[in-house]
Amino acid sequence: MIFFYAPSSCSMASHLALEQSGVAYEARRVDFSQNEQRSEAFLALNPKGRVPALLTEQGVLTETPAILAFISQSFPEAHLAPVEDPFRFAEAQAFNSYLCSTVHVAHAHRLRGARWADDPLAIEAMQKKVPQNMSDCFALIEQHLISGPYVLGETYSICDMYLFTICQWLERDGVDIRLFPKVEQLCQRMLENPLVARITALYAAA
Amino acid sequence: MIFFYAPSSCSMASHLALEQSGVAYEARRVDFSQNEQRSEAFLALNPKGRVPALLTEQGVLTETPAILAFISQSFPEAHLAPVEDPFRFAEAQAFNSYLCSTVHVAHAHRLRGARWADDPLAIEAMQKKVPQNMSDCFALIEQHLISGPYVLGETYSICDMYLFTICQWLERDGVDIRLFPKVEQLCQRMLENPLVARITALYAAA
Repeated sequence: MIFFYAPSSCSMASHLALEQSGVAYEARRVDFSQNEQRSEAFLALNPKGRVPALLTEQGVLTETPAILAFISQSFPEAHLAPVEDPFRFAEAQAFNSYLCSTVHVAHAHRLRGARWADDPLAIEAMQKKVPQNMSDCFALIEQHLISGPYVLGETYSICDMYLFTICQWLERDGVDIRLFPKVEQLCQRMLENPLVARITALYAAA
Repeated sequence: MIFFYAPSSCSMASHLALEQSGVAYEARRVDFSQNEQRSEAFLALNPKGRVPALLTEQGVLTETPAILAFISQSFPEAHLAPVEDPFRFAEAQAFNSYLCSTVHVAHAHRLRGARWADDPLAIEAMQKKVPQNMSDCFALIEQHLISGPYVLGETYSICDMYLFTICQWLERDGVDIRLFPKVEQLCQRMLENPLVARITALYAAA
């Protein structure tokens, strides 16, 4: 498999899952500074012009929640998600779906406001609201969505990997992670894993 | 199971899947005109204050892609998704993930701009861009994401149900569905199904 990623991006979640699964794969960086994600070659692979993208023997997969579900189901021995129970697997996917459709979107209004308005003042107004929106999302996560110590309880999963990824953006989004002790402890615990520390360094080195 | 829904909302996708699965369930309307989604009783069930929400014997599920995956996996005899193949199931989830994180979000900037900015002029600027953004999303779907005649090819699936749901909003989003013939034909074909016609009437009667 070939995994297309970019530092600072949400591809980190799938990257962590691939590493944790133990599968052999090649990681290929897409150079956003050269706008490589809009190059003809990359668009032929993923017409959305985004990362992550995972090239498998069966074809290309995109979208973080789908890639995470695929890795979990393809390598069940790695225990990355409760794939044996449709309800518990769906709970994991509900968490990831909330991250992609609400939390990542709230974050994106800081640097990607031009997606949703052309007026520079409107883009500025969106940026202004990001700290509040991200805080609201993390208050909900802290209070309702983390069983503890991990998202799904005792077992480390794809949900933690995705949450950890978004936590890397919190400081620049104007949110103090210390206000959310369960989230903070989860991230600290993950950083004790050398594999997580290595991927974190790779993504921070942008 | 008890399914919480609201007319005009994206709960239609899960509603269609529940009907198609053949499972016995109770549908309970959440009255948005009375702000019932923010009532204490509903927030106890779903702290996000949104629909859809599905109360099962194992607990509450939220988020359209997760509910759709759950119904597909729980009632495999209904053939709502290719649940037997992790890659093809992930492809279905990638499609649904794109709908929830990009297409639904593009749409939401028409009526829910206040989520992302407080300035009324910024909210107006967001509304202005909705027709273009929704057109761009549907151009991508038409060109790259529909195998035809259904999203996943010959087999009707949860992806069609979710796409059909979002298509109900296109006219008010300022998009002419006739510009996207594969999408339009898919919707017309679905409306020939009495079950789909009935749910469509329920959602339009808001």
